[in-house]
Amino acid sequence: MSYRNKNALITGGLGFIGSNLAIRLVAAGARVTIVDSSVPGCGANPYNIEPVRQQVKVIPHPICEPAEFSDEIRTSDVIFNLAGEISHVHSMDFPERDMQINAVAQLQFLEACRNLAPGVRIVYASTRQVYGVPRYLPVDESHPVNPIDFNGVHKYAATTYHLLYSSLGEIDAVAMRLTNVYGPRMALNVPCQGFLSTFLRRLLRGEPLEVFGDGQQLRDPLYVDDAVEAFLRAGEATPLLSRIYNVGGPAPITLLEIAQSASRVAGGGTVRTRPFPEPQKAIDIGSYYTDSSRIRAELGWEPEVRFEEGIGRTLAYYRKELVQYLDPASPYPACSMPEHGGVRRRLTFATV
Amino acid sequence: MSYRNKNALITGGLGFIGSNLAIRLVAAGARVTIVDSSVPGCGANPYNIEPVRQQVKVIPHPICEPAEFSDEIRTSDVIFNLAGEISHVHSMDFPERDMQINAVAQLQFLEACRNLAPGVRIVYASTRQVYGVPRYLPVDESHPVNPIDFNGVHKYAATTYHLLYSSLGEIDAVAMRLTNVYGPRMALNVPCQGFLSTFLRRLLRGEPLEVFGDGQQLRDPLYVDDAVEAFLRAGEATPLLSRIYNVGGPAPITLLEIAQSASRVAGGGTVRTRPFPEPQKAIDIGSYYTDSSRIRAELGWEPEVRFEEGIGRTLAYYRKELVQYLDPASPYPACSMPEHGGVRRRLTFATV
Repeated sequence: MSYRNKNALITGGLGFIGSNLAIRLVAAGARVTIVDSSVPGCGANPYNIEPVRQQVKVIPHPICEPAEFSDEIRTSDVIFNLAGEISHVHSMDFPERDMQINAVAQLQFLEACRNLAPGVRIVYASTRQVYGVPRYLPVDESHPVNPIDFNGVHKYAATTYHLLYSSLGEIDAVAMRLTNVYGPRMALNVPCQGFLSTFLRRLLRGEPLEVFGDGQQLRDPLYVDDAVEAFLRAGEATPLLSRIYNVGGPAPITLLEIAQSASRVAGGGTVRTRPFPEPQKAIDIGSYYTDSSRIRAELGWEPEVRFEEGIGRTLAYYRKELVQYLDPASPYPACSMPEHGGVRRRLTFATV
Repeated sequence: MSYRNKNALITGGLGFIGSNLAIRLVAAGARVTIVDSSVPGCGANPYNIEPVRQQVKVIPHPICEPAEFSDEIRTSDVIFNLAGEISHVHSMDFPERDMQINAVAQLQFLEACRNLAPGVRIVYASTRQVYGVPRYLPVDESHPVNPIDFNGVHKYAATTYHLLYSSLGEIDAVAMRLTNVYGPRMALNVPCQGFLSTFLRRLLRGEPLEVFGDGQQLRDPLYVDDAVEAFLRAGEATPLLSRIYNVGGPAPITLLEIAQSASRVAGGGTVRTRPFPEPQKAIDIGSYYTDSSRIRAELGWEPEVRFEEGIGRTLAYYRKELVQYLDPASPYPACSMPEHGGVRRRLTFATV
């Protein structure tokens, strides 16, 4: 209810989580503006906001050009800052690209926010990746930071920018350290977006699921509606009790169980294990699952959608809308970036 | 001895530590090339290399323009990477400047190194600042990272770039996490370079020393010759046993004792305490001193110069060369950056 008639700015609002958030905010009566330049490889898809196309304003600029939407920053009541590249593999192939998108652009955007909308609440989409290989499980907010790929380095830098400006009293930001999120509107047509995207794509194409290693690595997948609810609560909390929240799924589950469960829900399919490919092995973090007790205690948030339920809803969405996300007739694109000539910069990885 | 006839590239070689390192390397028989664009505020002073002016080559380009010295990268046997902005206060006033100098330029430089000189040993000047407020003392290399200013964020990002490229086998880097270093060739003419620079400047101008707070905060100042020795050992270690070394001074000492000791060595002078100014208070880390046991065990390095001895040598240097570092007749410059119109971007700090 608190979002009724509020001005909500969503960066990366054509992407996976951002678009789900936009739809929820419109339903809550907010006036939604999306800033999204649809950088190739970052998951933007105009079809994601089809249900609210008439109710949201879309500004097709990158966040590092805040002069193009200074009025929208100035009048915003809350900013949901989800613009970014999420692929760890992309970041290893194109570190400068990742730096520009995830660090440089964020600093330039926050400079504009502090000038144009001093004190504004900003909810930033950070990531569990900043913790690197867990030293203990479950991972809480006190866990040491130790990113093991360029994406983690830059997401950590941007997270710290939010915290520093907040310490200075210039903005009022909170960073959500998300675990693996899945659900409708994931960018199945973009390579290297993580195992959940890959599993869904293969299921929908009738291909076998492949789990790297022995498949016993734990994860705690979070359904996108639960992630959106966490963002909404962080956006309206007054006062904020913390500036960092770990946001995890309802329960740890192995990669093998995830594959088997998804396959079962999809109505059958092959699941097999295979040795780690080098690019993934170099930046694998082993098991990870989240201690979400802080956000539970302080914001009353709880993940409600269990994995089998969530993957069922996700498959139902894509079966209906598949043509908007995948062309089953064409081969799946290799992991490449058009603006880099489509060429993988690096061909081999050593083990970290 | 191992540096005889070796090609050593020093970025930031006109600065404080870089120039001392250049002089030592020339004495050891190395062929030294310096890359330094003399960015205002970063401590470059051509006079710093006066003793070896005829023996070193100076390339006046920033490290983010590696095409200007690609041959020198290609033929280097070892790279000492000291280019950067060290001022925490500057970084809070001009975060984008700090990002460009300390993170963006470093990534661009390392991209060139991995292409032009694959596997090259790079010794990087990192900083204790990445640890933030110590959770325990003394601080070893396992201490969690938690930078509390933009300088710390960007130095941490650049440190991690070095480690990631090394994990990939593309370079062979080692990061030296330095405590407060002092000695001849510090940039006394540049504001906001830390308390040791300020103390020296005030002593040389006959002004009273001011210690913020109660002066009981501990530090472990490191004499520059000891720091240089650590760089030299890290540059030649084969194989490297670690990629991160904390490098600290011989003993912890309070800020008040540092001021009193320096004043005594200088032949007298007033020492007084005063409340923290806001800009410094916002990024103060309390007490810090280093656990240097890893570098001691693995590289056989030990700091040899005690504080009273080091500050005496430092004062002797500046008394002889003062005109090259300070103009006693002109007022001391305010903390400002010419390229930003000389205007402090931010006037007030809240407390972190």
